[in-house]
Parts: sequence; C-alpha cells; structure tokens
Amino acid sequence: MTQKIRAIQYGCGPIGCAVARLAWQRGIELVGAVVRGDKTKVGRDLGELLGIDERLGVIVSDDADAVLAQAKADVVFHQTGSSLTAVFPQLAKIMGFGVNIVSSTEELAYPFQKQPELAAEIDRIAKANKVTVLSTGVNPGFLMDTWPLAMTAVCQAVKKVKAVRIQDARPRRLPFQKKIGAGCTLDEFQRLVDAGTLKHVGLSESIAMIAAGLGWELDEITESIEPVVARERVSSDYITVEPGQAAGVRQVGRGFKGGEELITLEFEASLGAPESYDAVYVTGTPNMEVVIKGGTHGDIATAAMVVNAARRVIEAPPGLLTMKDLPLVACTAG
Amino acid sequence: MTQKIRAIQYGCGPIGCAVARLAWQRGIELVGAVVRGDKTKVGRDLGELLGIDERLGVIVSDDADAVLAQAKADVVFHQTGSSLTAVFPQLAKIMGFGVNIVSSTEELAYPFQKQPELAAEIDRIAKANKVTVLSTGVNPGFLMDTWPLAMTAVCQAVKKVKAVRIQDARPRRLPFQKKIGAGCTLDEFQRLVDAGTLKHVGLSESIAMIAAGLGWELDEITESIEPVVARERVSSDYITVEPGQAAGVRQVGRGFKGGEELITLEFEASLGAPESYDAVYVTGTPNMEVVIKGGTHGDIATAAMVVNAARRVIEAPPGLLTMKDLPLVACTAG
Repeated sequence: MTQKIRAIQYGCGPIGCAVARLAWQRGIELVGAVVRGDKTKVGRDLGELLGIDERLGVIVSDDADAVLAQAKADVVFHQTGSSLTAVFPQLAKIMGFGVNIVSSTEELAYPFQKQPELAAEIDRIAKANKVTVLSTGVNPGFLMDTWPLAMTAVCQAVKKVKAVRIQDARPRRLPFQKKIGAGCTLDEFQRLVDAGTLKHVGLSESIAMIAAGLGWELDEITESIEPVVARERVSSDYITVEPGQAAGVRQVGRGFKGGEELITLEFEASLGAPESYDAVYVTGTPNMEVVIKGGTHGDIATAAMVVNAARRVIEAPPGLLTMKDLPLVACTAG
Repeated sequence: MTQKIRAIQYGCGPIGCAVARLAWQRGIELVGAVVRGDKTKVGRDLGELLGIDERLGVIVSDDADAVLAQAKADVVFHQTGSSLTAVFPQLAKIMGFGVNIVSSTEELAYPFQKQPELAAEIDRIAKANKVTVLSTGVNPGFLMDTWPLAMTAVCQAVKKVKAVRIQDARPRRLPFQKKIGAGCTLDEFQRLVDAGTLKHVGLSESIAMIAAGLGWELDEITESIEPVVARERVSSDYITVEPGQAAGVRQVGRGFKGGEELITLEFEASLGAPESYDAVYVTGTPNMEVVIKGGTHGDIATAAMVVNAARRVIEAPPGLLTMKDLPLVACTAG
C-alpha cells in the first residue's frame, strides 16, 4: 500500500474546485486550500466550496505562506491562470516551501520555446529546492501534444502531425461559453481577441512539445484566431446565438520548418458544432488516423490529468518537467 | 547533438531484420549481429541480410560472446522468441556484458504476473550490471496495454477497459499467415493450438500491465482461442482458404476481480477480416471510444516500437522496466 498523498489546492475557481473534488474522491488527503481574488471564499470549509457532503476541516485561506508552512504537503495542485509570467511568483513561493507542483497553467505546459529564460529559472529553483514542477491538462497536456506524440511510437518515420479538436461547447460551463465568444457580434468578438481575453492558450506550447518529442527544430510557429459564425440560431442553457453572431472560436496553430508546415493543430469550440471529436493524423510510415469519438470533455479531463499525474510528479526527479518526460500517466486508483 | 547510438542486432529473423533495417535508416550505428538457428546467415555482411544497398562491415556471427565483447554497444536489439524461459540465458549473457536490452520477447513485456521469480531475477541481474531491460512491440507493448493505459489519463475514474484488435492478415508476411492457422482444417487448427504453436502470446501480459497501471489487483486472468471459420473462399498472395477452413484466429483475454470482468482484450487476425482496426473502450468517467482507423501493421509497428524506445532505455535507470515505467516513447528523429 502506497502512502496517501497530501495535497494543497491552490486556486479555487471552477477548475481548481474540480481538481480538489476529484482528489478527494480518489482518496488524496486535502491538507490546505489557498484562494486568490474571491475573498468571499476565505474562511469557509473546503468541503463546502467543493459542494460535497462533508466538512474537510480545511479552511480556505488567502495566506499562501501560512498554508504552505503548516500543511506539510507532498504536492500543490495549482490552478490560478494561463499566463506563466503572472503565476511565476506563486510557483516560486511554493517551490521555496519545498513542495512539488502540478499546475494547469497553459504556458507552463511546455515553456521552453516561448519563455526559455523563465523556464530555465523555474527549473533552477525546482532543483535547488528538490521539487518537481509539471503543468498538464487536457489541452495543452494531452490531446494536442502527449497523445499525438504517444501515437507516433508505432511509426517508423513521421513527416507531419495534425491534431484536431472540435467541441460542441453547449455542455460546457458558462464561463467557457463566454470565453469562446459565443453570442458576441463579430465586432465584439474582435474586441475580445484584441484584448487577449478570448484566446485558448496552449497551441504554441503543444507545437513546441511535439517538435521536441520528435526531435524536430522548427523555424516558426504561428497561430490564427477567427470566429465560428452561426448560420442559424443556436442555444445552450445559458446563451442564445443569433445567425451572423459568433457561435465560438476557431484557432489554428502551425509549426514550420524550411517553409513547410509540419505540425498543424486545429482547435474549434462553438455552440452547436455538428460533431465533437478529437483526432490525430500522422503522415509517415505508416500514416495514422486516430479518433476519440464524441471528443473529450475539457473540464472533466483537465481535472483528471492533474490528479492522475500527481504521484508521477511526486516520484520524479527534481526540476521542471513536461508530459513528454514523465512516465506514462494513467487513471491510477488510490 | 546527442551521440549516435551503437547497437547490436541479436536475432536476425524477419522481425530482427526489420528492427536492424529501421535502426540503420534512422542513423543508429549497427556494430554487431548475432544469429541463432540459421547457420547459412553466419559470415555474411549484415547489410546484405537486410537487403540494403550497402555493406555495413558487420559480419553476422553465431558467437554472441565474441560480438558482445568486441562491439562496445549501448544497446542490444533482441528478437529471438516469445518465451521468456527460452530467452533468459541470452538476456543474462547480454546483461553480463553490461549492455542495455530492447527485446520483443512477448512474455518479457510484463512478466511480473506470470513469471514473477524470473522477472525478479532479471531485474536483479540488470541492476547488478547497471543496465536497463525492456521488452516492447506492437502487441504486447502498445496497442493492448500502453495505449489503453495512456488514454485513461483523461479519465476521472475507470471501471472497465476493453481493447480490440481486428486484422486482415492478407497484407502480412507468410509466416504470420501460417502462424494464425490460415488455410488449416479445423482439426489441424486444433492440433496447432494443442501444440502451442498457433497462439499469439501476450494477452495475459497486457492484462497484467493494464491492471498494474490502474492500480487494480486482479483475481484471475483467462485466455481463450478459437478459429475464425471462413464462410467463403478467401485468398492472400500465399494461401487460399476454403469455406469451413480456418481463416485465422480469435483470442480473448479477460481479467477478473470479484467475479467481474474488468479487462477484456479481443485479438482477431484472419485472412479477409472485413475491416482492420484497433480500438480502446473505457467504461468510466467519462466513457471513451478511441479508434485507429485501418488498424496498425504489426511488423512495421513492432520494429518502430523497438527502435523508438532505444534512447529512452539507454537513459533510464537500471533494472527491468516495462512500457508503463518509461517516459513517453515517440518516433524521435536521430
């Protein structure tokens, strides 16, 4: 019997709460909770915040230092934001207390391409404190990087990799539907793009990780973003989209070498997408076409990835790791 | 630039030659070749044996000691048989020379369930000689263990796992078509089953590996084997199967706990199977259905797995590892 994992939940928004709830269901001992932003959560029992029928005896706090000093945790589940620059001070603090981290910060999933200095600094601090840092999630973290890479194991040669994620966003939570611009006019959509609040973060990171995994040196990575325009009225439980409005977003990431597009990631999330699925296409020896029928529910999967990776991260050597460095992550009981 | 891998090819049958040919294509330096059985290969240049337009300056030898002593290899590609008992002396010898091993011996892919003493002994010898030993291939090694496990990473809970591999064997080589009993009468088929020569080896190993990866303790693992009976005449380039004869084999492996079937592996290889595909079905949160359209060509994929795993094995800590312990294996250039 392996020892119970002791975990702190850092960040108690929808994803953080989903992670903590799953951790609790899976028998991980929650020994601390840090909230940022929403002060109304401070002082409440974590069990109440998670909507479970049990008081956990863990009081949600906005004092990260106090929680980290007292909890003697094996790992911090860190779900506070997408921007690596923004979360770096939080990560540095956690590492300073000698605690491993499983984050879902998208830019941390594979930061070596876009933010190499910051990546090196995190790796240095992690090693100095003998802790391991990983960021994972459904995307980046699995569907558009780890999974395509894993499928190439049966290939003798790979020339191109394409991953496609098409999601009907109607079953997702309201913040996600808003985030993809559903119900916006096209002008509003463009303003959100310009403000940087609409974009799904992670395509560049996934492309860089695939390239590293295949031993490819890319010349250029590009990303495009555009609205999926509704042709007829479509509604979710929260939002009604009129024809001509944005039903969601379509983003394409591309990795080039010598002018040739070697990696293509197509991400589309919209209300009423005709069919949800995830797919990997490999051009190589042999060609491959692999499909997850019905797609993958993002919130469920991101919480799963974080919790499923916990023991691997605790057992890994110190440093900043990415999913391609970690032994196989599976849904391990207990 | 990472250093070139120096490899010995041990076993020069169809799979061994496919591995060595791919290794050569991928820039791995072949520094020795050991053949067993077929003495007509001894003394020939390995390049000639591989059917490539280049003499490699590597003379195929039946003296494993001499090759291992001289070659200073980083890794041995070991493709000589399915039975762990049979190949154990070869493995022990290779380890004694301090060389890492990537084998494709099916029973070595996950030997801890069926042959725990032998597994422990190999692990002990590997550690004593500071080498790493792995067995991999398409199946066992990927389609019915590593891949299903990898897909559960996005699951919050897993109740059951099923993997299906349906292959039209017509594009495969003649020995494979013979091995699955294509063209046998049902009596002949049964005699081959009774003699133990017809069976695809590895279902039990894959089941044990999935269980270990999910943290499940199974009570029982069973395997069944039966002919796929041809309903109409079907032909490959080599064999014609008449109606009522065996067109191939169907094997089902099952893993039970508390009387419940938690893991099911269905393997079918026959001439003229209506559709080749590989699939993983997970019953859990969420349910998953993942399909490799057109299936996976076994010979191509097994050679790929062995070569793709080489650097991971060289870099791994000493001992007997399985695919679930290794960092992600991908089709890495160079």
